[in-house]
Amino acid sequence: MNALDDLIESFSRLPGIGKKSAARIAHHLLKSDRSLCEHLAHDVSVLHDRIRMCTVCGAYTESDICDICRDPGRDRHTLCVVEQPQDVQTIEAVREYQGLFHVLGGVIAPLEGIGPDQLRLSSLVARVQEEQIQEIILATNPTVEGDTTALYIQKILKNISVTVTRLASGLPVGGDLEYADRLTLARSFRGRSSF
Amino acid sequence: MNALDDLIESFSRLPGIGKKSAARIAHHLLKSDRSLCEHLAHDVSVLHDRIRMCTVCGAYTESDICDICRDPGRDRHTLCVVEQPQDVQTIEAVREYQGLFHVLGGVIAPLEGIGPDQLRLSSLVARVQEEQIQEIILATNPTVEGDTTALYIQKILKNISVTVTRLASGLPVGGDLEYADRLTLARSFRGRSSF
Repeated sequence: MNALDDLIESFSRLPGIGKKSAARIAHHLLKSDRSLCEHLAHDVSVLHDRIRMCTVCGAYTESDICDICRDPGRDRHTLCVVEQPQDVQTIEAVREYQGLFHVLGGVIAPLEGIGPDQLRLSSLVARVQEEQIQEIILATNPTVEGDTTALYIQKILKNISVTVTRLASGLPVGGDLEYADRLTLARSFRGRSSF
Repeated sequence: MNALDDLIESFSRLPGIGKKSAARIAHHLLKSDRSLCEHLAHDVSVLHDRIRMCTVCGAYTESDICDICRDPGRDRHTLCVVEQPQDVQTIEAVREYQGLFHVLGGVIAPLEGIGPDQLRLSSLVARVQEEQIQEIILATNPTVEGDTTALYIQKILKNISVTVTRLASGLPVGGDLEYADRLTLARSFRGRSSF
């Protein structure tokens, strides 16, 4: 094992990178200028020191409170509840949503031993009670765990006067009826809207 | 731009990694233990310091002369000529070849301004004359440039008494005639062997 094999091994442990892609990347780094390696090594090594969780919403940030939570231009009456910090970036990239976020840090998954206590639910309830939230958009994934978690949140919020909504689930835009799975197609019927 | 965006940007510049894969990797690193980042950063940063080119064959090595060139168990009468250092690893992984290697460091590509002078050709001729090489296997890629380079090498070696061979080109094992391109199929006819 030399330094090249070590690097290929390290890269191939990352998600979505197989042995061949790892080798290709390592050889690319070796052929490129030394500064590319220095740059990448620096970015990787400072990651954990620089990035922490926003104390308000739980998204990734470099300061105590993230840019979105501090932005006076955001709609402070709407809260979008997501599973993971990266979901915030995904939604922000669409530029459709203008409100605030709340990151749960996971979903209820009894088989993996994750119950409601492991999620950021008490801080969610506290925010709904203390801040002037009028609508909660449940944006957990349309999976069994995501749906269960959305139902659970709806239940714990039912005594608080706040509108709780769920992201629409149905056929993807540009998709084809022929290739839609049964569950998605069934859900697109149930969620149909007037034309 | 925070440290997370910087890292996603750095990863997405690597070959075969798009924006989404880069984000997935960065979030994986952030969720994993800090030691994974330290490990990866270390492997990336030492790469250029540790790896150099073997002074004999041109393959990547941590010492002056690579393990293959120093291995007394290899067949020292056969020399396999490849384009790039990574081709050595690819061939070694197959465990079919027992001889030595010679890395050209590229192929003749006039359009990209790469002529014979930029390749490690004089050291190839010197090795053939000084070492007791009996066979040269030209293992450049079966592309226009690879074939041109192989022809060129055959020409410059024709006055030296050494057998020059070329890797077989034809249908890939497990492939299907139906999906073979015309050039490959034509070449598989020309290169047919008795059964």
